[in-house]
Amino acid sequence: MQHAILLISCPDQKGITSAVTSYVFDNGGNIIDASQHIDEQSNTFFMRIEWSLVGFKVSQDKIVGSFKPMAKKFGMSWQLYFTDDVPRVAIFVSQHLHGLYDLLLRHQGGQLKCDIPLIISNHSNAKGVAEQFGIKFFQVEIDKKNKKEQEKSELAILKKHGIELLVLARYHQILSPNFVSHFPNRIINIHHSFLPAFVGKSPYEQAYQKGVKIIGATSHFVIAKLDEGPIIEQDTVRISHRDSIEDLKRKGQDLEKIVLSRAVRWYLERKILTYGNKTVVFD
Amino acid sequence: MQHAILLISCPDQKGITSAVTSYVFDNGGNIIDASQHIDEQSNTFFMRIEWSLVGFKVSQDKIVGSFKPMAKKFGMSWQLYFTDDVPRVAIFVSQHLHGLYDLLLRHQGGQLKCDIPLIISNHSNAKGVAEQFGIKFFQVEIDKKNKKEQEKSELAILKKHGIELLVLARYHQILSPNFVSHFPNRIINIHHSFLPAFVGKSPYEQAYQKGVKIIGATSHFVIAKLDEGPIIEQDTVRISHRDSIEDLKRKGQDLEKIVLSRAVRWYLERKILTYGNKTVVFD
Amino acid sequence: MQHAILLISCPDQKGITSAVTSYVFDNGGNIIDASQHIDEQSNTFFMRIEWSLVGFKVSQDKIVGSFKPMAKKFGMSWQLYFTDDVPRVAIFVSQHLHGLYDLLLRHQGGQLKCDIPLIISNHSNAKGVAEQFGIKFFQVEIDKKNKKEQEKSELAILKKHGIELLVLARYHQILSPNFVSHFPNRIINIHHSFLPAFVGKSPYEQAYQKGVKIIGATSHFVIAKLDEGPIIEQDTVRISHRDSIEDLKRKGQDLEKIVLSRAVRWYLERKILTYGNKTVVFD
Amino acid sequence: MQHAILLISCPDQKGITSAVTSYVFDNGGNIIDASQHIDEQSNTFFMRIEWSLVGFKVSQDKIVGSFKPMAKKFGMSWQLYFTDDVPRVAIFVSQHLHGLYDLLLRHQGGQLKCDIPLIISNHSNAKGVAEQFGIKFFQVEIDKKNKKEQEKSELAILKKHGIELLVLARYHQILSPNFVSHFPNRIINIHHSFLPAFVGKSPYEQAYQKGVKIIGATSHFVIAKLDEGPIIEQDTVRISHRDSIEDLKRKGQDLEKIVLSRAVRWYLERKILTYGNKTVVFD
Repeated sequence: MQHAILLISCPDQKGITSAVTSYVFDNGGNIIDASQHIDEQSNTFFMRIEWSLVGFKVSQDKIVGSFKPMAKKFGMSWQLYFTDDVPRVAIFVSQHLHGLYDLLLRHQGGQLKCDIPLIISNHSNAKGVAEQFGIKFFQVEIDKKNKKEQEKSELAILKKHGIELLVLARYHQILSPNFVSHFPNRIINIHHSFLPAFVGKSPYEQAYQKGVKIIGATSHFVIAKLDEGPIIEQDTVRISHRDSIEDLKRKGQDLEKIVLSRAVRWYLERKILTYGNKTVVFD
Repeated sequence: MQHAILLISCPDQKGITSAVTSYVFDNGGNIIDASQHIDEQSNTFFMRIEWSLVGFKVSQDKIVGSFKPMAKKFGMSWQLYFTDDVPRVAIFVSQHLHGLYDLLLRHQGGQLKCDIPLIISNHSNAKGVAEQFGIKFFQVEIDKKNKKEQEKSELAILKKHGIELLVLARYHQILSPNFVSHFPNRIINIHHSFLPAFVGKSPYEQAYQKGVKIIGATSHFVIAKLDEGPIIEQDTVRISHRDSIEDLKRKGQDLEKIVLSRAVRWYLERKILTYGNKTVVFD
Repeated sequence: MQHAILLISCPDQKGITSAVTSYVFDNGGNIIDASQHIDEQSNTFFMRIEWSLVGFKVSQDKIVGSFKPMAKKFGMSWQLYFTDDVPRVAIFVSQHLHGLYDLLLRHQGGQLKCDIPLIISNHSNAKGVAEQFGIKFFQVEIDKKNKKEQEKSELAILKKHGIELLVLARYHQILSPNFVSHFPNRIINIHHSFLPAFVGKSPYEQAYQKGVKIIGATSHFVIAKLDEGPIIEQDTVRISHRDSIEDLKRKGQDLEKIVLSRAVRWYLERKILTYGNKTVVFD
Repeated sequence: MQHAILLISCPDQKGITSAVTSYVFDNGGNIIDASQHIDEQSNTFFMRIEWSLVGFKVSQDKIVGSFKPMAKKFGMSWQLYFTDDVPRVAIFVSQHLHGLYDLLLRHQGGQLKCDIPLIISNHSNAKGVAEQFGIKFFQVEIDKKNKKEQEKSELAILKKHGIELLVLARYHQILSPNFVSHFPNRIINIHHSFLPAFVGKSPYEQAYQKGVKIIGATSHFVIAKLDEGPIIEQDTVRISHRDSIEDLKRKGQDLEKIVLSRAVRWYLERKILTYGNKTVVFD
């Protein structure tokens, strides 16, 4: 059954919830979910409302037009989604394939409502996995000299395939600010540490040297600044002096898979709103 | 600043959210929080709405009357609370005092918005704590013969002091169904296991004998049937073969304190709705 | 590099640790790990000692003979393992394949030091996965009438392939006591609840109906009595009223994978000792 | 019953475990616990061995002398402790008293085997608590000008009272390197973040601004460099966009209490060894 989802943020003021829910009700819609949050620091109102289109009087292509006046009145930033529109996702990987496998198996198991038409990698070793799951594979090798040109190729591939979301499942390349600017809040990365601890290279080695008693993983939107984008999800696991770096990597991989897949699922279910450098997740 | 809080449950149907939020807005109220949930199994709608009474056109004593028609229309079960009405709480304990201390210190630190005028115990050892915090202490010794009579005394004490909520912070007496019936969903117990595992006596010993690798604690509303009331909160902690029963008790006490105090706080903040044998907690 | 591992349990008494470590040292061995535990309830001593065979004066095939006198003196139950002997593992599944996939991918990634020559299922849907990973697949359909006969076939298959360990990765058949008796403490099952809560069928449904706030998974050795064998590992995850049964299953699957794979890895690394209905895990 | 505990670290080599356990056994001691660890990066051996002195042939005051030759042979750093020697602990606080209360109640409940003769604070508000528990209270106000002098006073107080361990239970003063040098690995601090994230001031505010989804607490030994000493214990708790800074503080306080008290308990039970900037905790 087709649902509509509105993600809204605007300066807080009286009457927003009432106005939005009445818009849905007065047009004959049945609210499935309505979540709201007020950020008191910035006095910002956030809302996610999902309603069934069965019996909704406004036809799907006219909802944008019919909602605009209210959006204007309250100064809203807003996006409208329909649950029948299946987002198209590209996965980027380097040499560690556990995250890739995990996403593909969850997709196969029905956890991730999206199409995954292609995988991009700077290495060749994900090629077999791509074939196994019937997904196109593009090897785009990047070095310092050819980066600009190769990113251009990637952008062309992504455009051609109508990709909405990029998932970096351990893709060990830094994307240029120009590349990132084409996908604002539409690139999700997994960083294998509890950010802001251990940014950059080899976070498990950094954690091991520091002697922490807990390690973590962080999924976040990618912005121009490395490992600094809005955090979507984090999780942690206990370690001890008995754990070698190899143990940290093994334990951490389980975190990475869970933390990345949650972020991707929430994105696909239109549950994430971003403001400044933070996220609201209506899970 | 005075807020009103409505807790609502009713059969789900179109228009409830819109109607309730419009009731608040149309009367000039500013919504602070609106959370809703639909239980699909029973097709039940739950809502918690909190709004500021500054500028609200309906005077406080007339809100009930003005809301009644809507409540009737939708077949609502509902409670209305005001944040300035401070609930009065009695704590029941036996010999373990860690939970009692924890509640009193959280109360002192401002985490629990309530009055705690009295402590009831079947033993004398909490007397000193009561004195230290300036709280009345009633020792009501209960055995098989005098139970009916003693519970009657307790009910009189509770009535006299205007007690709304009873917190059993390790009170090792089984309350009679008659006693419980005076406080429906207004008695919170802490059980020192991960219910439904290890009901009844000595759950840490049971857990130790079973060889579980994780122990838990459960806070729940008390119903006539022992350890079977609606669960409010649970938490767990890892143990190993290295842990003795004493270690389980020590680790478990930290869980008990956290799990019980969360339940009490949520109750006081009017965040818990109960249906059948389950709870909705709008935390 | 070849290591020897001894797993020892015996009545506790003075001098065991000293005797065992001296046995290794006096014969030129280099201790890699020595862990011990005393269960005070039963006054039982447990030890795991691992040493390098480089420079060890007793040849591999004579270690059993040379250690026997000490074992006899202290009344030890003991097993000797060598890290070059790779255990052979059979995986049993029914229709849920997430656990199977997870084990095979961890095996492929080097986390599980074993051979996995075969998969047995009462359904056909794991066949494709088996082929994909180059593993033999045996479909053995079991109903009430043919159970005795079919288990006989399974035992023949397992014997023929030299299987040491059976892993039930969501195998929804109850093994007969006779079958179980062929693999004492060598069958690992994953139960998708926090045992002893929710034994038997449909634990996620049971958990949902009960209204628990946390769900769990348990890996354990299989004994004749259903869901009652020694617990090896457990883990839990938080849920709320917002989670449907489908959400419980999704969250639970992540637990199942982690909890089962830990148990299998510890078994393969010879880190688990069993006594009565409990385990010592020298992780 | 009197036990002896040896904490040992030395370059790893063959025969250490055998030699130490034989030392105990040959002298008639009964080993209660023997834990060891080898750090492969630095090739360092760590051991904690605890044995009953009942029937031990070496009298208590001669153990040091009798063990010295072995210690010399293996190049050991080592400490010898007796369980009857009760360590004397001073608690330092500023204005937040939850950690102080928690330690005193655990002490009262028998969890912490130590004497706590005194509390030192730069403020007066812990005075009442000190009185309530019958503990001496010293208010030592520190500002930029008088710091050197005041620390001298503190050192005199600590010396006079025979203090072994300092516990900083939210003491918002930076100790001078000179002060710290008097208590090497004998000052335990609680930092209210998941170090190395959010060092320095106002970690909850930092965490809130960063938008992390999990917060933590860290107990560590104090060294001259702020928040950089060897980490003893950490724990984390989940937060969301719904949590205000006040909620972070409330949730964090529960972590702080648990994480600090674990570190203190392990110290008192002689379970912590330190090497470089890391700890081995034989819990």
